[in-house]
Amino acid sequence: MKEEIKSRTETIEQILNAYLPNEEELASDVVRAMNYSVNAGGKRLRPMLMQETYRLFGGTGKVIEPFMAAIEMIHTYSLVHDDLPAMDNDEYRRGKKTTWAQYGEAVAILAGDGLLNYAFETALKAFSREGADMQRVARALSILADKAGIFGMIGGQDADIAAEHSGEALTLSELLYIHEHKTAALIQAAMMIGAVLAGADDMSVETIEKAAYEIGIAFQIQDDILDVTSTFEELGKPIGSDEKNNKVTYVTLKGIEEASREQKELSNHAIGLLEAFGEQGYHNAFLTDLVKSLITRLK
Amino acid sequence: MKEEIKSRTETIEQILNAYLPNEEELASDVVRAMNYSVNAGGKRLRPMLMQETYRLFGGTGKVIEPFMAAIEMIHTYSLVHDDLPAMDNDEYRRGKKTTWAQYGEAVAILAGDGLLNYAFETALKAFSREGADMQRVARALSILADKAGIFGMIGGQDADIAAEHSGEALTLSELLYIHEHKTAALIQAAMMIGAVLAGADDMSVETIEKAAYEIGIAFQIQDDILDVTSTFEELGKPIGSDEKNNKVTYVTLKGIEEASREQKELSNHAIGLLEAFGEQGYHNAFLTDLVKSLITRLK
Repeated sequence: MKEEIKSRTETIEQILNAYLPNEEELASDVVRAMNYSVNAGGKRLRPMLMQETYRLFGGTGKVIEPFMAAIEMIHTYSLVHDDLPAMDNDEYRRGKKTTWAQYGEAVAILAGDGLLNYAFETALKAFSREGADMQRVARALSILADKAGIFGMIGGQDADIAAEHSGEALTLSELLYIHEHKTAALIQAAMMIGAVLAGADDMSVETIEKAAYEIGIAFQIQDDILDVTSTFEELGKPIGSDEKNNKVTYVTLKGIEEASREQKELSNHAIGLLEAFGEQGYHNAFLTDLVKSLITRLK
Repeated sequence: MKEEIKSRTETIEQILNAYLPNEEELASDVVRAMNYSVNAGGKRLRPMLMQETYRLFGGTGKVIEPFMAAIEMIHTYSLVHDDLPAMDNDEYRRGKKTTWAQYGEAVAILAGDGLLNYAFETALKAFSREGADMQRVARALSILADKAGIFGMIGGQDADIAAEHSGEALTLSELLYIHEHKTAALIQAAMMIGAVLAGADDMSVETIEKAAYEIGIAFQIQDDILDVTSTFEELGKPIGSDEKNNKVTYVTLKGIEEASREQKELSNHAIGLLEAFGEQGYHNAFLTDLVKSLITRLK
Protein backbone atom coordinates (compact mmCIF):
# COMPACT_ATOMS: atom_id res chain seq x y z
CA MET A 1 0.00 0.00 0.00
CA LYS A 2 2.79 2.41 0.95
CA GLU A 3 4.53 1.79 -2.37
CA GLU A 4 1.29 2.25 -4.26
CA ILE A 5 0.54 5.53 -2.50
CA LYS A 6 4.08 6.69 -3.23
CA SER A 7 3.79 5.89 -6.91
CA ARG A 8 0.41 7.60 -7.23
CA THR A 9 1.70 10.62 -5.33
CA GLU A 10 4.51 10.93 -7.87
CA THR A 11 2.02 10.84 -10.73
CA ILE A 12 -0.01 13.54 -9.00
CA GLU A 13 3.11 15.67 -8.55
CA GLN A 14 3.81 15.42 -12.27
CA ILE A 15 0.30 16.64 -13.03
CA LEU A 16 0.64 19.39 -10.45
CA ASN A 17 3.97 20.54 -11.87
CA ALA A 18 2.59 20.61 -15.39
CA TYR A 19 -0.02 23.11 -14.19
CA LEU A 20 2.25 25.34 -12.11
CA PRO A 21 3.12 28.74 -13.60
CA ASN A 22 6.35 29.09 -15.53
CA GLU A 23 8.99 30.78 -13.36
CA GLU A 24 11.28 31.70 -16.20
CA GLU A 25 8.57 33.51 -18.12
CA LEU A 26 7.86 35.90 -15.28
CA ALA A 27 11.11 35.79 -13.29
CA SER A 28 9.12 36.89 -10.30
CA ASP A 29 9.56 36.40 -6.57
CA VAL A 30 5.87 35.77 -6.17
CA VAL A 31 5.83 33.00 -8.78
CA ARG A 32 8.94 31.46 -7.23
CA ALA A 33 7.27 31.63 -3.81
CA MET A 34 4.09 30.06 -5.21
CA ASN A 35 6.04 27.14 -6.64
CA TYR A 36 8.21 26.84 -3.52
CA SER A 37 5.05 26.55 -1.43
CA VAL A 38 3.47 23.89 -3.61
CA ASN A 39 6.73 21.96 -3.90
CA ALA A 40 7.37 22.01 -0.15
CA GLY A 41 5.84 18.56 -0.03
CA GLY A 42 2.69 17.19 1.49
CA LYS A 43 0.67 14.06 1.05
CA ARG A 44 -1.29 15.35 -1.97
CA LEU A 45 -4.25 13.82 -0.18
CA ARG A 46 -6.89 16.07 -1.74
CA PRO A 47 -5.96 15.48 -5.39
CA MET A 48 -5.54 11.78 -4.62
CA LEU A 49 -8.99 11.50 -3.04
CA MET A 50 -10.38 13.47 -5.99
CA GLN A 51 -8.82 11.22 -8.59
CA GLU A 52 -9.77 8.02 -6.79
CA THR A 53 -13.38 9.13 -6.34
CA TYR A 54 -13.42 9.98 -10.04
CA ARG A 55 -12.17 6.44 -10.74
CA LEU A 56 -14.71 4.94 -8.33
CA PHE A 57 -17.47 6.26 -10.56
CA GLY A 58 -15.75 5.14 -13.74
CA GLY A 59 -14.03 8.40 -14.70
CA THR A 60 -11.07 7.96 -17.03
CA GLY A 61 -10.51 11.32 -18.79
CA LYS A 62 -8.11 14.18 -18.27
CA VAL A 63 -10.80 16.69 -17.30
CA ILE A 64 -10.04 15.84 -13.67
CA GLU A 65 -6.41 16.98 -13.87
CA PRO A 66 -6.85 20.76 -13.77
CA PHE A 67 -9.11 20.30 -10.75
CA MET A 68 -6.53 18.07 -9.02
CA ALA A 69 -3.93 20.81 -9.43
CA ALA A 70 -6.42 23.52 -8.42
CA ILE A 71 -7.43 21.94 -5.12
CA GLU A 72 -3.81 21.44 -4.09
CA MET A 73 -3.13 25.11 -4.91
CA ILE A 74 -6.04 26.14 -2.69
CA HIS A 75 -4.87 23.90 0.12
CA THR A 76 -1.36 25.33 -0.25
CA TYR A 77 -2.44 28.98 -0.28
CA SER A 78 -4.41 28.38 2.92
CA LEU A 79 -1.23 27.10 4.61
CA VAL A 80 0.85 30.02 3.27
CA HIS A 81 -1.55 32.57 4.74
CA ASP A 82 -2.17 30.53 7.91
CA ASP A 83 1.57 30.53 8.66
CA LEU A 84 1.91 34.34 8.44
CA PRO A 85 3.08 36.24 11.54
CA ALA A 86 -0.35 37.88 11.90
CA MET A 87 -1.97 34.42 11.86
CA ASP A 88 -0.20 31.36 13.38
CA ASN A 89 3.31 32.83 13.06
CA ASP A 90 4.89 29.50 12.05
CA GLU A 91 8.42 29.45 10.67
CA TYR A 92 8.58 25.78 9.77
CA ARG A 93 6.30 23.33 8.06
CA ARG A 94 7.26 19.82 6.97
CA GLY A 95 10.85 20.55 8.03
CA LYS A 96 11.15 23.48 5.63
CA LYS A 97 10.92 27.21 6.15
CA THR A 98 7.42 28.52 5.60
CA THR A 99 6.87 30.85 2.67
CA TRP A 100 7.00 34.10 4.64
CA ALA A 101 10.08 32.93 6.57
CA GLN A 102 11.77 32.25 3.24
CA TYR A 103 10.54 35.17 1.11
CA GLY A 104 9.21 37.78 3.53
CA GLU A 105 5.65 38.65 4.46
CA ALA A 106 4.70 40.80 1.47
CA VAL A 107 5.73 38.15 -1.04
CA ALA A 108 4.00 35.45 1.01
CA ILE A 109 0.72 37.39 1.08
CA LEU A 110 0.86 37.85 -2.70
CA ALA A 111 1.95 34.25 -3.25
CA GLY A 112 -1.12 33.07 -1.34
CA ASP A 113 -3.35 35.39 -3.37
CA GLY A 114 -1.60 34.22 -6.52
CA LEU A 115 -2.19 30.55 -5.69
CA LEU A 116 -5.87 31.06 -4.88
CA ASN A 117 -6.41 32.99 -8.10
CA TYR A 118 -4.30 30.54 -10.11
CA ALA A 119 -6.38 27.67 -8.75
CA PHE A 120 -9.38 29.13 -10.58
CA GLU A 121 -7.35 29.95 -13.69
CA THR A 122 -6.28 26.31 -13.66
CA ALA A 123 -9.64 24.70 -12.93
CA LEU A 124 -11.20 26.77 -15.72
CA LYS A 125 -8.89 25.00 -18.16
CA ALA A 126 -11.09 21.91 -17.66
CA PHE A 127 -13.63 23.49 -20.04
CA SER A 128 -11.19 23.01 -22.90
CA ARG A 129 -10.13 19.44 -22.01
CA GLU A 130 -11.18 16.81 -24.52
CA GLY A 131 -14.64 15.46 -23.90
CA ALA A 132 -15.38 17.94 -21.12
CA ASP A 133 -19.05 18.14 -20.20
CA MET A 134 -19.72 21.87 -19.65
CA GLN A 135 -22.51 21.35 -17.13
CA ARG A 136 -20.39 19.04 -15.00
CA VAL A 137 -17.36 21.35 -15.15
CA ALA A 138 -19.52 24.33 -14.15
CA ARG A 139 -20.92 22.37 -11.22
CA ALA A 140 -17.45 21.22 -10.16
CA LEU A 141 -16.24 24.85 -10.24
CA SER A 142 -19.10 25.92 -7.97
CA ILE A 143 -18.34 23.14 -5.51
CA LEU A 144 -14.68 24.15 -5.45
CA ALA A 145 -15.48 27.82 -4.89
CA ASP A 146 -18.17 27.21 -2.26
CA LYS A 147 -16.18 24.74 -0.17
CA ALA A 148 -13.07 26.95 -0.25
CA GLY A 149 -14.87 30.14 0.79
CA ILE A 150 -16.47 31.69 3.83
CA PHE A 151 -19.14 28.98 3.94
CA GLY A 152 -16.31 26.43 3.83
CA MET A 153 -12.58 26.57 4.50
CA ILE A 154 -12.22 30.32 5.07
CA GLY A 155 -15.18 30.12 7.46
CA GLY A 156 -13.20 27.56 9.45
CA GLN A 157 -10.10 29.75 9.55
CA ASP A 158 -12.28 32.62 10.65
CA ALA A 159 -13.83 30.65 13.52
CA ASP A 160 -10.37 29.41 14.47
CA ILE A 161 -8.85 32.88 14.88
CA ALA A 162 -12.03 34.20 16.52
CA ALA A 163 -11.70 31.42 19.10
CA GLU A 164 -8.04 32.27 19.69
CA HIS A 165 -8.81 35.95 20.13
CA SER A 166 -11.76 35.38 22.46
CA GLY A 167 -9.50 33.79 25.08
CA GLU A 168 -12.28 31.43 26.09
CA ALA A 169 -11.91 27.67 25.85
CA LEU A 170 -13.58 26.07 22.84
CA THR A 171 -16.54 23.82 23.31
CA LEU A 172 -16.75 20.53 21.43
CA SER A 173 -19.36 21.87 19.02
CA GLU A 174 -17.21 24.92 18.24
CA LEU A 175 -14.22 22.67 17.64
CA LEU A 176 -16.27 20.49 15.31
CA TYR A 177 -17.43 23.60 13.42
CA ILE A 178 -13.79 24.55 12.88
CA HIS A 179 -12.77 21.05 11.80
CA GLU A 180 -15.77 20.69 9.51
CA HIS A 181 -14.98 23.92 7.72
CA LYS A 182 -11.23 24.28 7.98
CA THR A 183 -10.41 20.68 7.08
CA ALA A 184 -13.41 18.62 5.97
CA ALA A 185 -14.80 21.17 3.48
CA LEU A 186 -11.86 20.87 1.09
CA ILE A 187 -11.88 17.07 1.35
CA GLN A 188 -15.58 17.18 0.53
CA ALA A 189 -14.82 19.39 -2.46
CA ALA A 190 -12.13 16.98 -3.64
CA MET A 191 -14.33 13.89 -3.51
CA MET A 192 -17.53 15.60 -4.73
CA ILE A 193 -15.72 17.05 -7.75
CA GLY A 194 -14.37 13.59 -8.57
CA ALA A 195 -17.90 12.20 -8.40
CA VAL A 196 -19.51 15.05 -10.37
CA LEU A 197 -16.95 14.97 -13.18
CA ALA A 198 -17.37 11.21 -13.51
CA GLY A 199 -21.11 11.72 -13.88
CA ALA A 200 -22.32 10.33 -10.55
CA ASP A 201 -25.99 11.04 -9.80
CA ASP A 202 -27.09 13.56 -7.17
CA MET A 203 -27.77 10.97 -4.48
CA SER A 204 -24.30 9.50 -4.89
CA VAL A 205 -22.72 12.97 -4.70
CA GLU A 206 -24.59 13.53 -1.43
CA THR A 207 -23.33 10.26 -0.01
CA ILE A 208 -19.79 11.21 -1.05
CA GLU A 209 -20.21 14.56 0.71
CA LYS A 210 -21.16 12.72 3.89
CA ALA A 211 -18.32 10.20 3.66
CA ALA A 212 -15.85 13.01 2.96
CA TYR A 213 -17.08 14.87 6.04
CA GLU A 214 -16.28 11.83 8.17
CA ILE A 215 -12.91 11.35 6.51
CA GLY A 216 -12.09 15.02 7.05
CA ILE A 217 -12.96 14.98 10.74
CA ALA A 218 -11.10 11.69 11.26
CA PHE A 219 -8.10 13.16 9.46
CA GLN A 220 -8.13 16.24 11.67
CA ILE A 221 -8.42 14.19 14.87
CA GLN A 222 -5.39 12.24 13.66
CA ASP A 223 -3.54 15.56 13.30
CA ASP A 224 -4.40 16.43 16.89
CA ILE A 225 -3.21 13.01 18.04
CA LEU A 226 0.05 13.28 16.10
CA ASP A 227 0.78 16.65 17.65
CA VAL A 228 1.19 14.96 21.03
CA THR A 229 2.61 11.56 20.00
CA SER A 230 5.16 12.36 17.27
CA THR A 231 8.73 13.59 17.23
CA PHE A 232 9.96 16.69 15.37
CA GLU A 233 11.62 14.44 12.78
CA GLU A 234 8.43 12.49 12.11
CA LEU A 235 6.25 15.55 11.89
CA GLY A 236 8.63 18.05 10.27
CA LYS A 237 7.46 20.81 12.61
CA PRO A 238 7.61 21.48 16.34
CA ILE A 239 5.53 18.96 18.29
CA GLY A 240 3.34 19.76 21.24
CA SER A 241 2.60 23.14 19.70
CA ASP A 242 -1.12 22.75 20.41
CA GLU A 243 -0.47 22.20 24.12
CA LYS A 244 2.11 25.01 24.17
CA ASN A 245 -0.45 27.35 22.62
CA ASN A 246 -3.11 26.16 25.10
CA LYS A 247 -5.08 25.07 22.10
CA VAL A 248 -8.21 23.05 22.67
CA THR A 249 -8.12 19.97 20.43
CA TYR A 250 -10.05 16.76 20.14
CA VAL A 251 -7.32 15.19 22.27
CA THR A 252 -7.45 17.78 25.05
CA LEU A 253 -11.26 17.52 25.13
CA LYS A 254 -11.59 13.73 25.01
CA GLY A 255 -8.20 12.20 25.74
CA ILE A 256 -6.12 10.21 23.28
CA GLU A 257 -7.93 6.91 23.69
CA GLU A 258 -11.42 8.24 23.14
CA ALA A 259 -10.20 10.46 20.30
CA SER A 260 -8.62 7.43 18.62
CA ARG A 261 -11.76 5.37 19.08
CA GLU A 262 -14.02 8.01 17.55
CA GLN A 263 -11.61 8.61 14.75
CA LYS A 264 -11.65 4.89 13.85
CA GLU A 265 -15.43 4.85 14.03
CA LEU A 266 -15.69 7.81 11.63
CA SER A 267 -13.24 6.24 9.18
CA ASN A 268 -14.99 2.88 9.30
CA HIS A 269 -18.35 4.47 8.69
CA ALA A 270 -16.97 6.40 5.72
CA ILE A 271 -15.42 3.23 4.34
CA GLY A 272 -18.79 1.51 4.71
CA LEU A 273 -20.44 4.24 2.66
CA LEU A 274 -17.79 3.92 -0.05
CA GLU A 275 -17.99 0.12 -0.13
CA ALA A 276 -21.78 0.24 -0.42
CA PHE A 277 -21.34 1.75 -3.89
CA GLY A 278 -20.22 -1.76 -4.84
CA GLU A 279 -23.90 -2.73 -4.95
CA GLN A 280 -24.28 -0.34 -7.90
CA GLY A 281 -21.19 -1.78 -9.54
CA TYR A 282 -18.77 0.95 -8.42
CA HIS A 283 -15.56 -0.37 -6.89
CA ASN A 284 -12.24 1.20 -5.99
CA ALA A 285 -10.31 -0.91 -3.49
CA PHE A 286 -7.42 1.55 -3.48
CA LEU A 287 -9.73 4.35 -2.30
CA THR A 288 -10.92 2.39 0.73
CA ASP A 289 -7.35 1.31 1.51
CA LEU A 290 -6.27 4.94 1.25
CA VAL A 291 -8.90 6.03 3.76
CA LYS A 292 -7.80 3.21 6.09
CA SER A 293 -4.19 4.32 5.79
CA LEU A 294 -5.05 7.84 6.85
CA ILE A 295 -5.78 6.81 10.41
CA THR A 296 -2.58 4.79 10.66
CA ARG A 297 -0.20 7.38 9.19
CA LEU A 298 3.03 7.75 11.13
CA LYS A 299 1.63 6.11 14.26
CA MET B 1 -23.08 63.80 -16.47
CA LYS B 2 -22.24 63.92 -12.76
CA GLU B 3 -25.89 63.23 -11.84
CA GLU B 4 -26.07 60.40 -14.34
CA ILE B 5 -22.90 58.79 -12.98
CA LYS B 6 -24.26 59.16 -9.46
CA SER B 7 -27.52 57.50 -10.34
CA ARG B 8 -25.83 54.62 -12.16
CA THR B 9 -23.38 54.19 -9.28
CA GLU B 10 -26.35 53.77 -6.93
CA THR B 11 -27.84 51.11 -9.16
CA ILE B 12 -24.50 49.31 -9.20
CA GLU B 13 -24.29 49.47 -5.41
CA GLN B 14 -27.72 47.86 -5.17
CA ILE B 15 -26.55 45.02 -7.39
CA LEU B 16 -23.33 44.72 -5.42
CA ASN B 17 -25.17 44.59 -2.10
CA ALA B 18 -27.53 41.93 -3.37
CA TYR B 19 -24.50 39.73 -4.03
CA LEU B 20 -22.61 40.37 -0.80
CA PRO B 21 -22.64 37.56 1.76
CA ASN B 22 -25.22 37.64 4.52
CA GLU B 23 -23.63 38.87 7.75
CA GLU B 24 -26.38 37.63 10.01
CA GLU B 25 -26.18 34.10 8.72
CA LEU B 26 -22.53 33.74 9.64
CA ALA B 27 -22.13 36.38 12.36
CA SER B 28 -18.47 36.44 11.50
CA ASP B 29 -15.78 39.10 11.77
CA VAL B 30 -14.41 38.12 8.40
CA VAL B 31 -17.76 38.55 6.66
CA ARG B 32 -18.29 41.88 8.42
CA ALA B 33 -14.81 42.96 7.32
CA MET B 34 -15.51 41.84 3.73
CA ASN B 35 -18.69 43.91 3.60
CA TYR B 36 -17.05 46.86 5.38
CA SER B 37 -14.32 46.85 2.72
CA VAL B 38 -16.73 46.74 -0.21
CA ASN B 39 -19.00 49.35 1.36
CA ALA B 40 -16.13 51.74 2.11
CA GLY B 41 -17.00 53.50 -1.13
CA GLY B 42 -15.22 53.90 -4.39
CA LYS B 43 -16.24 54.96 -7.85
CA ARG B 44 -17.46 51.47 -8.88
CA LEU B 45 -15.62 52.23 -12.09
CA ARG B 46 -14.95 48.61 -13.06
CA PRO B 47 -18.55 47.37 -12.81
CA MET B 48 -19.70 50.57 -14.52
CA LEU B 49 -17.29 50.11 -17.44
CA MET B 50 -18.35 46.45 -17.62
CA GLN B 51 -22.04 47.22 -17.74
CA GLU B 52 -21.63 50.05 -20.25
CA THR B 53 -19.49 47.92 -22.56
CA TYR B 54 -22.14 45.22 -22.29
CA ARG B 55 -24.74 47.83 -23.32
CA LEU B 56 -22.51 49.12 -26.13
CA PHE B 57 -22.78 45.70 -27.77
CA GLY B 58 -26.49 45.43 -27.14
CA GLY B 59 -26.44 43.38 -23.93
CA THR B 60 -29.62 43.69 -21.87
CA GLY B 61 -29.80 40.60 -19.60
CA LYS B 62 -28.94 39.99 -15.96
CA VAL B 63 -26.06 37.61 -16.70
CA ILE B 64 -23.70 40.58 -16.37
CA GLU B 65 -24.69 41.31 -12.76
CA PRO B 66 -22.76 38.55 -10.96
CA PHE B 67 -19.66 39.59 -12.92
CA MET B 68 -20.16 43.25 -11.99
CA ALA B 69 -20.22 42.27 -8.32
CA ALA B 70 -17.30 39.87 -8.77
CA ILE B 71 -14.93 42.39 -10.33
CA GLU B 72 -15.61 44.94 -7.59
CA MET B 73 -14.89 42.22 -4.98
CA ILE B 74 -11.57 41.46 -6.68
CA HIS B 75 -10.67 45.15 -6.86
CA THR B 76 -11.60 45.51 -3.18
CA TYR B 77 -9.62 42.48 -1.98
CA SER B 78 -6.55 43.84 -3.77
CA LEU B 79 -6.87 47.10 -1.82
CA VAL B 80 -7.41 45.24 1.47
CA HIS B 81 -4.21 43.24 1.02
CA ASP B 82 -2.29 46.16 -0.47
CA ASP B 83 -3.01 48.28 2.63
CA LEU B 84 -1.62 45.66 5.06
CA PRO B 85 1.34 46.63 7.26
CA ALA B 86 3.60 44.19 5.40
CA MET B 87 2.61 45.83 2.10
CA ASP B 88 1.87 49.59 1.89
CA ASN B 89 1.00 49.97 5.58
CA ASP B 90 -1.87 52.39 4.94
CA GLU B 91 -4.30 53.20 7.74
CA TYR B 92 -6.73 55.31 5.73
CA ARG B 93 -8.39 55.00 2.38
CA ARG B 94 -11.18 57.28 1.10
CA GLY B 95 -11.24 58.94 4.52
CA LYS B 96 -12.04 55.70 6.32
CA LYS B 97 -9.90 53.30 8.29
CA THR B 98 -8.51 50.53 6.13
CA THR B 99 -9.69 47.01 6.87
CA TRP B 100 -6.66 45.94 8.92
CA ALA B 101 -6.71 49.21 10.87
CA GLN B 102 -10.37 48.54 11.71
CA TYR B 103 -10.36 44.76 12.26
CA GLY B 104 -6.74 43.73 12.76
CA GLU B 105 -4.31 42.06 10.39
CA ALA B 106 -5.48 38.47 10.69
CA VAL B 107 -9.10 39.33 9.90
CA ALA B 108 -7.98 41.60 7.04
CA ILE B 109 -5.89 38.84 5.46
CA LEU B 110 -8.85 36.44 5.66
CA ALA B 111 -11.30 39.11 4.46
CA GLY B 112 -9.14 39.63 1.36
CA ASP B 113 -8.98 35.88 0.76
CA GLY B 114 -12.71 35.69 1.37
CA LEU B 115 -13.45 38.43 -1.17
CA LEU B 116 -11.24 36.90 -3.85
CA ASN B 117 -12.83 33.51 -3.36
CA TYR B 118 -16.33 34.99 -3.13
CA ALA B 119 -15.75 36.82 -6.39
CA PHE B 120 -15.52 33.45 -8.12
CA GLU B 121 -18.44 32.01 -6.14
CA THR B 122 -20.42 35.03 -7.33
CA ALA B 123 -19.32 35.07 -10.96
CA LEU B 124 -20.14 31.34 -11.22
CA LYS B 125 -23.76 32.21 -10.47
CA ALA B 126 -23.92 33.66 -13.98
CA PHE B 127 -24.28 30.09 -15.29
CA SER B 128 -27.72 29.88 -13.72
CA ARG B 129 -28.95 33.33 -14.81
CA GLU B 130 -31.80 33.28 -17.31
CA GLY B 131 -30.64 33.01 -20.89
CA ALA B 132 -26.98 32.54 -19.94
CA ASP B 133 -24.83 31.28 -22.79
CA MET B 134 -22.50 28.72 -21.19
CA GLN B 135 -19.65 29.26 -23.64
CA ARG B 136 -19.68 33.02 -23.10
CA VAL B 137 -19.87 32.69 -19.32
CA ALA B 138 -16.96 30.24 -19.35
CA ARG B 139 -14.90 32.63 -21.46
CA ALA B 140 -15.80 35.57 -19.21
CA LEU B 141 -14.69 33.56 -16.17
CA SER B 142 -11.33 32.83 -17.78
CA ILE B 143 -10.80 36.50 -18.62
CA LEU B 144 -11.63 37.45 -15.04
CA ALA B 145 -9.25 34.88 -13.58
CA ASP B 146 -6.39 35.60 -16.01
CA LYS B 147 -6.49 39.37 -15.69
CA ALA B 148 -6.67 39.19 -11.88
CA GLY B 149 -3.77 36.76 -11.48
CA ILE B 150 0.00 36.70 -11.76
CA PHE B 151 -0.18 37.45 -15.48
CA GLY B 152 -2.40 40.41 -14.62
CA MET B 153 -3.13 42.36 -11.45
CA ILE B 154 -1.13 40.25 -9.00
CA GLY B 155 1.81 40.41 -11.42
CA GLY B 156 1.61 44.19 -11.16
CA GLN B 157 1.54 44.12 -7.35
CA ASP B 158 4.50 41.79 -7.47
CA ALA B 159 6.55 44.10 -9.71
CA ASP B 160 5.55 47.03 -7.52
CA ILE B 161 6.87 45.53 -4.28
CA ALA B 162 9.95 44.14 -6.05
CA ALA B 163 10.71 47.68 -7.23
CA GLU B 164 10.27 49.06 -3.72
CA HIS B 165 12.54 46.40 -2.24
CA SER B 166 15.25 46.82 -4.88
CA GLY B 167 15.90 50.40 -3.79
CA GLU B 168 16.68 51.37 -7.37
CA ALA B 169 14.68 54.01 -9.21
CA LEU B 170 12.09 52.66 -11.64
CA THR B 171 12.55 53.16 -15.34
CA LEU B 172 9.61 54.29 -17.47
CA SER B 173 9.15 50.82 -18.96
CA GLU B 174 9.10 49.23 -15.49
CA LEU B 175 6.55 51.79 -14.35
CA LEU B 176 4.39 51.07 -17.39
CA TYR B 177 4.62 47.33 -16.67
CA ILE B 178 3.30 47.98 -13.17
CA HIS B 179 0.49 50.25 -14.37
CA GLU B 180 -0.46 47.87 -17.17
CA HIS B 181 -0.80 44.96 -14.76
CA LYS B 182 -1.78 46.52 -11.47
CA THR B 183 -4.40 48.87 -12.89
CA ALA B 184 -5.15 48.33 -16.57
CA ALA B 185 -5.57 44.53 -16.38
CA LEU B 186 -8.73 44.68 -14.27
CA ILE B 187 -10.19 47.47 -16.43
CA GLN B 188 -9.48 45.27 -19.44
CA ALA B 189 -11.22 42.38 -17.71
CA ALA B 190 -14.23 44.57 -16.94
CA MET B 191 -14.71 45.81 -20.49
CA MET B 192 -13.80 42.52 -22.21
CA ILE B 193 -16.29 40.61 -20.04
CA GLY B 194 -18.99 43.13 -20.96
CA ALA B 195 -18.20 42.61 -24.62
CA VAL B 196 -17.98 38.81 -24.43
CA LEU B 197 -21.24 38.40 -22.51
CA ALA B 198 -23.04 40.64 -25.02
CA GLY B 199 -21.78 38.40 -27.82
CA ALA B 200 -19.20 40.74 -29.42
CA ASP B 201 -16.97 39.03 -31.99
CA ASP B 202 -13.30 38.29 -31.35
CA MET B 203 -12.00 41.31 -33.23
CA SER B 204 -14.23 43.64 -31.24
CA VAL B 205 -13.10 42.05 -27.96
CA GLU B 206 -9.48 42.68 -29.02
CA THR B 207 -10.23 46.32 -29.76
CA ILE B 208 -11.92 46.65 -26.38
CA GLU B 209 -8.85 45.12 -24.73
CA LYS B 210 -6.69 47.78 -26.38
CA ALA B 211 -9.03 50.67 -25.51
CA ALA B 212 -9.24 49.42 -21.91
CA TYR B 213 -5.45 49.32 -21.71
CA GLU B 214 -5.32 53.00 -22.67
CA ILE B 215 -8.11 53.90 -20.28
CA GLY B 216 -6.33 52.02 -17.49
CA ILE B 217 -3.00 53.76 -18.05
CA ALA B 218 -4.69 57.16 -18.36
CA PHE B 219 -6.60 56.46 -15.15
CA GLN B 220 -3.40 55.56 -13.31
CA ILE B 221 -1.57 58.66 -14.56
CA GLN B 222 -4.50 60.69 -13.24
CA ASP B 223 -3.98 58.99 -9.86
CA ASP B 224 -0.34 60.05 -9.89
CA ILE B 225 -1.34 63.60 -10.80
CA LEU B 226 -3.98 63.77 -8.06
CA ASP B 227 -1.44 62.61 -5.49
CA VAL B 228 0.43 65.90 -5.94
CA THR B 229 -2.42 68.30 -6.76
CA SER B 230 -5.21 67.32 -4.34
CA THR B 231 -5.97 68.05 -0.72
CA PHE B 232 -6.58 65.38 1.96
CA GLU B 233 -10.30 66.22 1.90
CA GLU B 234 -10.58 65.78 -1.84
CA LEU B 235 -8.61 62.55 -1.92
CA GLY B 236 -9.72 60.94 1.36
CA LYS B 237 -6.17 59.83 2.10
CA PRO B 238 -2.86 61.54 2.82
CA ILE B 239 -1.63 63.49 -0.22
CA GLY B 240 1.93 63.64 -1.41
CA SER B 241 2.43 60.06 -0.17
CA ASP B 242 4.16 59.08 -3.41
CA GLU B 243 6.73 61.83 -3.00
CA LYS B 244 7.11 61.09 0.71
CA ASN B 245 7.79 57.43 -0.13
CA ASN B 246 10.25 58.50 -2.87
CA LYS B 247 8.00 56.69 -5.26
CA VAL B 248 8.69 57.04 -8.96
CA THR B 249 5.46 57.94 -10.76
CA TYR B 250 4.48 59.15 -14.17
CA VAL B 251 4.57 62.64 -12.72
CA THR B 252 8.07 62.39 -11.22
CA LEU B 253 9.37 60.90 -14.49
CA LYS B 254 7.71 63.32 -16.91
CA GLY B 255 6.43 66.30 -14.97
CA ILE B 256 2.77 67.21 -14.51
CA GLU B 257 2.30 68.93 -17.86
CA GLU B 258 3.69 66.15 -20.01
CA ALA B 259 1.90 63.53 -17.86
CA SER B 260 -1.40 65.40 -18.38
CA ARG B 261 -0.80 65.68 -22.10
CA GLU B 262 -0.09 61.96 -22.53
CA GLN B 263 -3.00 61.03 -20.36
CA LYS B 264 -5.36 63.09 -22.53
CA GLU B 265 -3.88 61.53 -25.65
CA LEU B 266 -4.48 58.02 -24.32
CA SER B 267 -8.05 58.80 -23.32
CA ASN B 268 -8.81 60.42 -26.65
CA HIS B 269 -7.42 57.47 -28.55
CA ALA B 270 -9.49 55.08 -26.46
CA ILE B 271 -12.59 57.17 -27.06
CA GLY B 272 -11.85 57.07 -30.79
CA LEU B 273 -11.72 53.27 -30.68
CA LEU B 274 -15.05 53.14 -28.83
CA GLU B 275 -16.73 55.64 -31.16
CA ALA B 276 -15.55 53.70 -34.21
CA PHE B 277 -17.90 50.88 -33.18
CA GLY B 278 -20.64 53.26 -34.30
CA GLU B 279 -19.82 52.24 -37.87
CA GLN B 280 -21.06 48.75 -36.96
CA GLY B 281 -24.15 50.18 -35.33
CA TYR B 282 -22.88 50.00 -31.74
CA HIS B 283 -23.37 53.24 -29.80
CA ASN B 284 -23.14 54.13 -26.11
CA ALA B 285 -22.69 57.86 -25.59
CA PHE B 286 -22.63 57.45 -21.82
CA LEU B 287 -19.60 55.15 -22.08
CA THR B 288 -17.55 57.70 -24.02
CA ASP B 289 -18.66 60.49 -21.67
CA LEU B 290 -17.65 58.30 -18.74
CA VAL B 291 -14.16 57.82 -20.16
CA LYS B 292 -13.88 61.57 -20.74
CA SER B 293 -14.94 62.25 -17.16
CA LEU B 294 -12.18 60.00 -15.82
CA ILE B 295 -9.48 62.46 -16.82
CA THR B 296 -11.31 65.41 -15.34
CA ARG B 297 -12.20 63.85 -11.98
CA LEU B 298 -11.57 66.16 -9.03
CA LYS B 299 -9.20 68.43 -10.95
